[in-house]
Amino acid sequence: MRSDVTHFTCNIDGPIATVSLNRPERKNPLTFDSYAELRDWFRDLHYDDDIRAVIFAPNGGNFSSGGDVHDIIGPLTRMNTKELMRFTRMTGDLVRAMIGCGKPIIAAVDGVCAGAGAIIAMASDLRIATPEAKTAFLFNRVGLAGCDMGACAILPRLIGQGRAAELLYLGRSMTADEGLAWGFFNRVVPADELLDNARDLAGRIAAGPGFANMMTKTMLAQEWAMTLDQAIEAEAQAQAICMQTQDFHRAYHAFVAKQKPVFEGD
Amino acid sequence: MRSDVTHFTCNIDGPIATVSLNRPERKNPLTFDSYAELRDWFRDLHYDDDIRAVIFAPNGGNFSSGGDVHDIIGPLTRMNTKELMRFTRMTGDLVRAMIGCGKPIIAAVDGVCAGAGAIIAMASDLRIATPEAKTAFLFNRVGLAGCDMGACAILPRLIGQGRAAELLYLGRSMTADEGLAWGFFNRVVPADELLDNARDLAGRIAAGPGFANMMTKTMLAQEWAMTLDQAIEAEAQAQAICMQTQDFHRAYHAFVAKQKPVFEGD
Amino acid sequence: MRSDVTHFTCNIDGPIATVSLNRPERKNPLTFDSYAELRDWFRDLHYDDDIRAVIFAPNGGNFSSGGDVHDIIGPLTRMNTKELMRFTRMTGDLVRAMIGCGKPIIAAVDGVCAGAGAIIAMASDLRIATPEAKTAFLFNRVGLAGCDMGACAILPRLIGQGRAAELLYLGRSMTADEGLAWGFFNRVVPADELLDNARDLAGRIAAGPGFANMMTKTMLAQEWAMTLDQAIEAEAQAQAICMQTQDFHRAYHAFVAKQKPVFEGD
Repeated sequence: MRSDVTHFTCNIDGPIATVSLNRPERKNPLTFDSYAELRDWFRDLHYDDDIRAVIFAPNGGNFSSGGDVHDIIGPLTRMNTKELMRFTRMTGDLVRAMIGCGKPIIAAVDGVCAGAGAIIAMASDLRIATPEAKTAFLFNRVGLAGCDMGACAILPRLIGQGRAAELLYLGRSMTADEGLAWGFFNRVVPADELLDNARDLAGRIAAGPGFANMMTKTMLAQEWAMTLDQAIEAEAQAQAICMQTQDFHRAYHAFVAKQKPVFEGD
Repeated sequence: MRSDVTHFTCNIDGPIATVSLNRPERKNPLTFDSYAELRDWFRDLHYDDDIRAVIFAPNGGNFSSGGDVHDIIGPLTRMNTKELMRFTRMTGDLVRAMIGCGKPIIAAVDGVCAGAGAIIAMASDLRIATPEAKTAFLFNRVGLAGCDMGACAILPRLIGQGRAAELLYLGRSMTADEGLAWGFFNRVVPADELLDNARDLAGRIAAGPGFANMMTKTMLAQEWAMTLDQAIEAEAQAQAICMQTQDFHRAYHAFVAKQKPVFEGD
Repeated sequence: MRSDVTHFTCNIDGPIATVSLNRPERKNPLTFDSYAELRDWFRDLHYDDDIRAVIFAPNGGNFSSGGDVHDIIGPLTRMNTKELMRFTRMTGDLVRAMIGCGKPIIAAVDGVCAGAGAIIAMASDLRIATPEAKTAFLFNRVGLAGCDMGACAILPRLIGQGRAAELLYLGRSMTADEGLAWGFFNRVVPADELLDNARDLAGRIAAGPGFANMMTKTMLAQEWAMTLDQAIEAEAQAQAICMQTQDFHRAYHAFVAKQKPVFEGD
C-alpha cells in the first residue's frame, strides 16, 4: 500500500496504516486535492492484503475543520450544476471508498472535528475521542443541508434519529461526553493517550481474522436496507464462506490444543 | 398560513407557528375533526414559505391523551372494515403530513402524552419534555397493536429496537428521564421554562437556512430505507441543489467579511 | 404446544412457556440437535393459540456458551460448501422461527451468553440480565465474521451501529451495565430475582391482547426495511384488522364500565 501521498500524511507500520490531514496550522481543512487523494487511497486499499486496520488520526490537536472556506466553499459558489455534482459525488465517493475498503477504520478524534471532518469520523467503523473533541455537522451554518456525504442515513443509525436531527438542524457541536453516551464514540481518553488507545484497538483488530473482519465490514454495509429475511440468508452465505478459511481451522486447532490462535488472514 | 382553525389552536408569530390541542379540561384528546384538521393544516404548510419552524405545544399542563374514548374508540367499535381503513389511513396521513411539511417540528411535551398524542411527539423532529411528561404508546392497553401511525417503524429508530418493543408490548409510560437517556427527548426542562426553550430552539432553526433545513427534513425521511450507495448519491444530488441557493452564497460572503450570515430561505 | 422435547427443557405454565438449554455442566452449548429442535419448536409455536409469551431462561447460572467446539466447530471444519450452507441456514432458520413465532420472547440472561447464545438473546423481543451476564458476539475469536444469524442487521438496531461494530470486530464481552445503557437489556436484576422478573414481564404480556401483540411482533419485523410511506400504510391495514377483534371491543366496554379489561386473544 502506498504511503507516498501528497495531500495527507500516511505511515504504515506492519498491518496498521495511520493517516491524517496535514495542515495543522489551519486545523486540517480538506481541499479538492486531499478529498481526491484520500478517495483514491481508500479505493486502492480495497485491493491491499497487508494492511488490516487503519487509524485516521488528528494532527496538531485537531482532527479536521472540514471543507476549506477559501479553497472549497468560495469556488463552489461559482460553479454550475454539473461542476457541483462532480464535487458532491467526489465527496460521497470518499465515504463509499472508506466503507468499501474492507479494513476497519478507527477515527482518533481530538479538537475540531467539523463538517467533512465529522463525516470522516462518522464513516469510520470505530471512534475514540479526547475530552476536547468537538464534533459538528455544521452544514446548515454555511447555508447547506445536513444531507452531506451520507449523514442523514448514517448518523441516525449511530446515535438515534432524534439526536441526529438536532445536530443536523442546529449545526451545534456534540461534546465528547455526549458522543460517548449516544454511541458515536466508543471511548473517550485523555489526549496524551489517544494514539496509544487507537493503536491498541487497531492492533487487536489486526491480530484478528482479516478475511472475516473484511466480511463483517462488508455485511454491516450490505445489510443496511435489507429485510430481516434477506439479511439472515445473506449472513448464512457469508459465514459459510468464512467457514472455509484457514483462519477458522487455525482457531479450531488452537482451541483444541489449548493455545491462542494466530490468524493469518486467509 | 392559516391560523383560523377550529379543532385546535394555532398562533403564528413571525416564522414560528405554535399549535396545540384545545380541550385541556380533558387532557386534549384527539377527535375525528381535530385529526382531519391537523392533517390538512400540515399539508397546507408544505406550500407555505413564511413559516420556518413549528412548535406543537401542550395545553393546561398536558400534551394529549390521544384518541378520545367516547368520541373515537366507541364509534370505531361499530365500524366496518372500509370505515376502519378510512380512519387508520387518516391518522397515518397526519404523520405523513407532519413528515412532509418541510419545516422542523418541535414537540414540547408536558404531562399526559398518550396514544396518538405520543405518536405526534414521535413524528416531530425534536422533542423537549418537562420532568412530569408521561409518554405512553398504550395501544395494547385498549386491545390494539403497537403498529399505529408508524410506531413500529419510527420508535425503534429513535430509542432502539429493544426499548421500543418494551414500550409497545407493555403500553407503559416512558418517564422524561428515560426519554432523555434513550434519545426520545432532546432536552428535559422545568415546566415553566418549557415554552421558552421550545421558542429558543424554534428561533434558532428559523434563523437558519430555510430551504436547506427543508432539504434536511426531506432527506431524513427519504433515505429511511435506502441502501448506503443510494443514500450517498441522493445526498450528492440534494446538496448540489442547496449549493445553488442564495443562502449558501450569503454564508460564504458573510464568512469572508467576518460577519454572521443572515439567511433568507432561498 | 409440545413440552416433550429432547435437546432442551421446556415447561409450560398456562400461557407462558419457559425453555432453556440443558447442559449446565458445560454452560449450555448448542448442538446440531438442539439447533434443529429449537427451530422446529418455535416454528410450531407459530400455530399455537394457548401460549402467549415465552421465556428463554438460563440453566445452572449460564445462558448459553454457543456452538459447541467439539460437537459443532470441529465437524464444521470438515464440511464442504453445501454442508456448511445447510448448517448456516439452519441456524438462521432458528432466528427466523423466533421472529416469526408470533409470541413475545423474553431472554433471561445470566452468566455466559456467547456466540449463538448471544444471538438467541438478540433475536428475542425483550432481555433481562443479571449483573453477572457476559454477552459476547465472539465469532471473530474463532476466525469467523460477525455476520452470523442476522447479527450485522439486528445488533445495530438494538445498540447503535458504532457499538455493534466494536462488539463484532473485537468479540469482547458486553457487560450487563453496558447492555442496559445501550438498550440491549431492558432491565438488570439480581440473579435470585431473574426468573421472577421474567415471569412478571411474561405475565403482563400474556394478560394483554394476544392477537394484537402477535401483530405488533409481526410488524416490528415486517417494517424493518420499508420506506416510511410503506410502513404507515402497512400499519393502517394492520391496526384496522386489530380494531375488528373482540379484545378491542372488550377494552372499550371495560373502560366505559370503569373496569379493567380481560383480554382473551381474539
